[in-house]
Amino acid sequence: MESNAKETVNSDLLKERQRCTFDTLELTHLLDGGPEKTAERREREIFFLDDPELKFKTPPEYLSHQDKYGEAIRLSCVLFRKIQELQKEGKAGIANYREILGGQIGSAIMKDGNPLTLHYVMFIPTVMGQGTYEQQAEWIQKAWNCDIVGTYAQTELGHGTFIRGLETTATYDPKTEEFVIHSPTLTSYKWWPGGLGHTANYAVVVAQLNTLGKCYGIHSFIVQLRDEETHKPLPGIKIGEIGCKLGMNTTNNGYLGFDNVRIPRKQMLMKNNKVLKDGTYVESPSSKLTYGTMMFVRVVIVQDAADYLKKAVIIAIRYSCVRRQSQPKPDEPEPQILDYITQQYKLFPLISTYYAFRYSATWLWDMYNNVSSELEAGMLDQLPELHALACCLKAISSTDAALGIEMCRLACGGHGYMMSSNLPTTYGLVTAMCTYEGENTVLLLQTARFLMKAWQIKVDGQKLTPTVEYLQSARDTVYQRNVHWIISTLQYVAARKIELAWQHMNERIQKGISSEDAWNQTSIELTAAAEAHGRAFIVSMYCTTMEDIKKTVSKPLRLVLIQLLDLYGITTAFKCLGDILRFTKATGADIEDLQLWLEELLTLLRPNAVGLVDSFDVRDEVLSSALGAYDGNVYERLFEEASKSPLNSEPVHKSFDRYLKPFLKSQL
Amino acid sequence: MESNAKETVNSDLLKERQRCTFDTLELTHLLDGGPEKTAERREREIFFLDDPELKFKTPPEYLSHQDKYGEAIRLSCVLFRKIQELQKEGKAGIANYREILGGQIGSAIMKDGNPLTLHYVMFIPTVMGQGTYEQQAEWIQKAWNCDIVGTYAQTELGHGTFIRGLETTATYDPKTEEFVIHSPTLTSYKWWPGGLGHTANYAVVVAQLNTLGKCYGIHSFIVQLRDEETHKPLPGIKIGEIGCKLGMNTTNNGYLGFDNVRIPRKQMLMKNNKVLKDGTYVESPSSKLTYGTMMFVRVVIVQDAADYLKKAVIIAIRYSCVRRQSQPKPDEPEPQILDYITQQYKLFPLISTYYAFRYSATWLWDMYNNVSSELEAGMLDQLPELHALACCLKAISSTDAALGIEMCRLACGGHGYMMSSNLPTTYGLVTAMCTYEGENTVLLLQTARFLMKAWQIKVDGQKLTPTVEYLQSARDTVYQRNVHWIISTLQYVAARKIELAWQHMNERIQKGISSEDAWNQTSIELTAAAEAHGRAFIVSMYCTTMEDIKKTVSKPLRLVLIQLLDLYGITTAFKCLGDILRFTKATGADIEDLQLWLEELLTLLRPNAVGLVDSFDVRDEVLSSALGAYDGNVYERLFEEASKSPLNSEPVHKSFDRYLKPFLKSQL
Repeated sequence: MESNAKETVNSDLLKERQRCTFDTLELTHLLDGGPEKTAERREREIFFLDDPELKFKTPPEYLSHQDKYGEAIRLSCVLFRKIQELQKEGKAGIANYREILGGQIGSAIMKDGNPLTLHYVMFIPTVMGQGTYEQQAEWIQKAWNCDIVGTYAQTELGHGTFIRGLETTATYDPKTEEFVIHSPTLTSYKWWPGGLGHTANYAVVVAQLNTLGKCYGIHSFIVQLRDEETHKPLPGIKIGEIGCKLGMNTTNNGYLGFDNVRIPRKQMLMKNNKVLKDGTYVESPSSKLTYGTMMFVRVVIVQDAADYLKKAVIIAIRYSCVRRQSQPKPDEPEPQILDYITQQYKLFPLISTYYAFRYSATWLWDMYNNVSSELEAGMLDQLPELHALACCLKAISSTDAALGIEMCRLACGGHGYMMSSNLPTTYGLVTAMCTYEGENTVLLLQTARFLMKAWQIKVDGQKLTPTVEYLQSARDTVYQRNVHWIISTLQYVAARKIELAWQHMNERIQKGISSEDAWNQTSIELTAAAEAHGRAFIVSMYCTTMEDIKKTVSKPLRLVLIQLLDLYGITTAFKCLGDILRFTKATGADIEDLQLWLEELLTLLRPNAVGLVDSFDVRDEVLSSALGAYDGNVYERLFEEASKSPLNSEPVHKSFDRYLKPFLKSQL
Repeated sequence: MESNAKETVNSDLLKERQRCTFDTLELTHLLDGGPEKTAERREREIFFLDDPELKFKTPPEYLSHQDKYGEAIRLSCVLFRKIQELQKEGKAGIANYREILGGQIGSAIMKDGNPLTLHYVMFIPTVMGQGTYEQQAEWIQKAWNCDIVGTYAQTELGHGTFIRGLETTATYDPKTEEFVIHSPTLTSYKWWPGGLGHTANYAVVVAQLNTLGKCYGIHSFIVQLRDEETHKPLPGIKIGEIGCKLGMNTTNNGYLGFDNVRIPRKQMLMKNNKVLKDGTYVESPSSKLTYGTMMFVRVVIVQDAADYLKKAVIIAIRYSCVRRQSQPKPDEPEPQILDYITQQYKLFPLISTYYAFRYSATWLWDMYNNVSSELEAGMLDQLPELHALACCLKAISSTDAALGIEMCRLACGGHGYMMSSNLPTTYGLVTAMCTYEGENTVLLLQTARFLMKAWQIKVDGQKLTPTVEYLQSARDTVYQRNVHWIISTLQYVAARKIELAWQHMNERIQKGISSEDAWNQTSIELTAAAEAHGRAFIVSMYCTTMEDIKKTVSKPLRLVLIQLLDLYGITTAFKCLGDILRFTKATGADIEDLQLWLEELLTLLRPNAVGLVDSFDVRDEVLSSALGAYDGNVYERLFEEASKSPLNSEPVHKSFDRYLKPFLKSQL
């Protein structure tokens, strides 16, 4: 999708832009963190996105699986070379890596996954986090220079979220001072790691450590997979790719089995626990230290989910201003579909969802950094709270973003179903987030476990930590048309749901049911309670953040931003309507007023819809959508994209002579 | 996915089957309509699914877009040849066509769409429905013998659901007695018709008819697109495929533009309206007669949605019995994931959803046939009611089935994301139903229009038709733990929502807002009211049908079927919880009891979960899923499928030498 390929901008979009009541550049700067940050981001985008080498020669969806992989390798090598250029200039910080590998630039270039991402995102960080200084010295330089390319092999065919259940074994042999890595069963084959199929030549492998006849649980090992010169799999390494998926088809997810593969002792990552030469196991004082990476990824997912949702909503809103449909009034032209209230109701809340998730992600990121430095200092107090929140925010943001993207796609009608809308691919990438790095239901139950403890603390009259303090203070208050009422009501509802789940679980235990079975039997209510907790948190954090932002922005912008916050509050309240009516004194009349307020806000936001999505300042290459480009030349672009189909390069496909003609000409 | 490829059945599944408390064959016969019907269906499945010619040589997801199309053409020609064989034996009724083309057999063979389907499903029926006897004589024989292959070209790049807005013109030229078919704009290009890209050589084209300087709205014309011998596009025909989509990538959806293409006058389909030689337009007495086809397709969608959902839930339930995860109790093995209540809550309601949709579809089908014969006799009375119900049932069933399939996919964790689970493809096919044949929101608004009229009839004290009679009779009754309370409560809620929307619309009109704008401003509530109406109908129809079925089945089966009905009722009630609490006297205690009832039902259904999905008697080839096969050899099959990836045919992909090695070996 070339940007600025067309010279004229669609006249409907022009009008929309003239209607906008605030300065879109002000909002762009606010979102970037200041004009310099905007300039920096744009420069980085130019560096990557204007490079003609960094484009698929044919859109990947038309290629065979093998050719798609070949193109992905070509692109990711060019991409990494450019990252190395930035490194040399000292411009490639961690934030940039995220942006380039997992974020907007990366997905604009690679479209459907990068086979080299795990090298930077998991292999290097794991060696850094879990390796001794000697190990870091040996491996990081090679990895950083890309002399070797690594991946992270944890998940197995039979075990995902429950990592204690992993079956791969690493058995220490003191005679040779080696570990023997082995796959005892079919289900113990590693399955899923990105880049594992045909790309990486090394991997961090997670396996059950056995030494001197005893199993010490899972540990990490560096294992060479392929010859560095020929790339052929080494003896005992059974490796390949796992096949096509709903999305991420250029990630080269692989499988890996070991037939008694021997590695030197020093390739166990030993920053924390160690195995000495004689096979003695030496335990680290804190086993929670390895917790970090997993939590880091969950924190990142919240922001990524928001970013993908943002792309989808830009596409859907611009398209909805260009697309016209039906003729409610016989003498007037067909309205832009964004003038239908049902369409506004589908899309406007999703703009505000971006802000809501973003501010929760920011808070989470700050807390993560906070907790990480405390961890280094041996303080673990805040860890459970961070963990609990990271779990439910990851679950809610990935679920809602995936649903929101599908909402955008469906709101674009048939054309949203086209790959050239980029909405299907976006959905494929985001729905995967619901499963990886902890399946969402499992994560909600982890949050619930924290909440049950918190409720017990409340019952015991102890002091609650900040994010659950509301369990004590929440009150059922009389309806008022403002977001503060919504927040306190959501908190009150969350408290009641947590209390009820706690109560039902304890009732079951008192009946003689084991605590594990009681937990399971109460788990529908437990997950719902965790979700309610997370939703109340998100609205409240959004509101808190806006309190600060309000003070710094111009009045026209402030007005719009507050409308968005209110809209998010209302739509969350409607999501929780059953609970609100069940647990609070809110009445039918209150709900009617909420509904009116909702409808008013949609109308107020309507003129600024395009301005709001323009402010996100996402380049056409990043949107990568025939429906969403800045110029709004939707139909021209749909045609242009169709013309790229190799099927259209010839008027008659060879299957006509081979199959169709003989069939048509045959006599029954 | 070969059936019976493995000799042993997974031991967990064996145990599940032993636990089943009812005779699965009894249920299979019930679902088929008797043992003979089961035998017939199985025979038909053997005829098609055991044919080695009717299998993709490589799974389509690995092929380039062009090769995928070539394989699809090969398969669909073989498939149609076999249908012709059946025809000769007199065994191919309409129901069989549906099964073979759109239904389970068709999707098992073609996987992701058939480029020839519209020939039978739209081209032939349209010519039959809208052609004169002479036209039928001329065209049907050729089409039936497959001497020509047709499609149906209605939707344009700029116009979908709103067909009055179509732009293609057919202008009559009395001098030559021809119509001139023309595409005046880019947006007037036909876009989407299946098989149009490179397959069909004829099409029924829907265009605005102009004669003697006046436009008479849309009419249908038979237009030849390609030379019958060479298959080359005829002069003035601009044709190609529209590119890749989220799904249906072997449907060969095409675009089509006309540059003043001339066709003989007799190629306008003139059963109803006519253009005489001199250009005089002669109108038919009843313009509603062409309504039929569109309604027919919507009726079919409800059943198709149910069938696809059925496949997904079979896959997810079998997998959930084989997959084990976590270790809640330290001394016990990892539980089957179906033992987690949250998993049961995700999946069991979807089994019952199949029944619910199926019985609504059956009712709709009967009413459709009923109304069709009345239409032939000139009676139009029941048409609005059928139309209103077909619209909201299509919308609800396609939406819920798509969400349900995604629920199944996500419930299978990472492996659900594999194409070899067949869940992604299934979702792709079903989510398309939300858009085609009338976009769901638009359809709900059509139902709402009927409901607003119905409420006015109620207000006026006139007699209501059967499906809205409850607007008069529904009462708010005291909670009882049974499905009848749920039905009457849902009806009461629907009535209140309809009333409220009606009231709000009229308030707006009284404020001086035009009726069109008032309609739009009330449309969030209107769609919600239509949905409530549809949901109440579905549960009530499910219950009514079960009243009859209960009498004919054995006691063990009856028990399970009633549990399913109850479960569907409860989950619907929970979906509408906000409304129930808003409009009725149901209390928090009632909801607690509903929750307990739900949890009890899940526990009661657990031992029969596999029995229930086995009873659907869906062959492995139809499921086409590594996760869902009858033998439950999930992990072996996942591996077997991965081994089919052409990327795995060589240990080192050529991109290593070309791109990756130079990159790894380069010095910074």
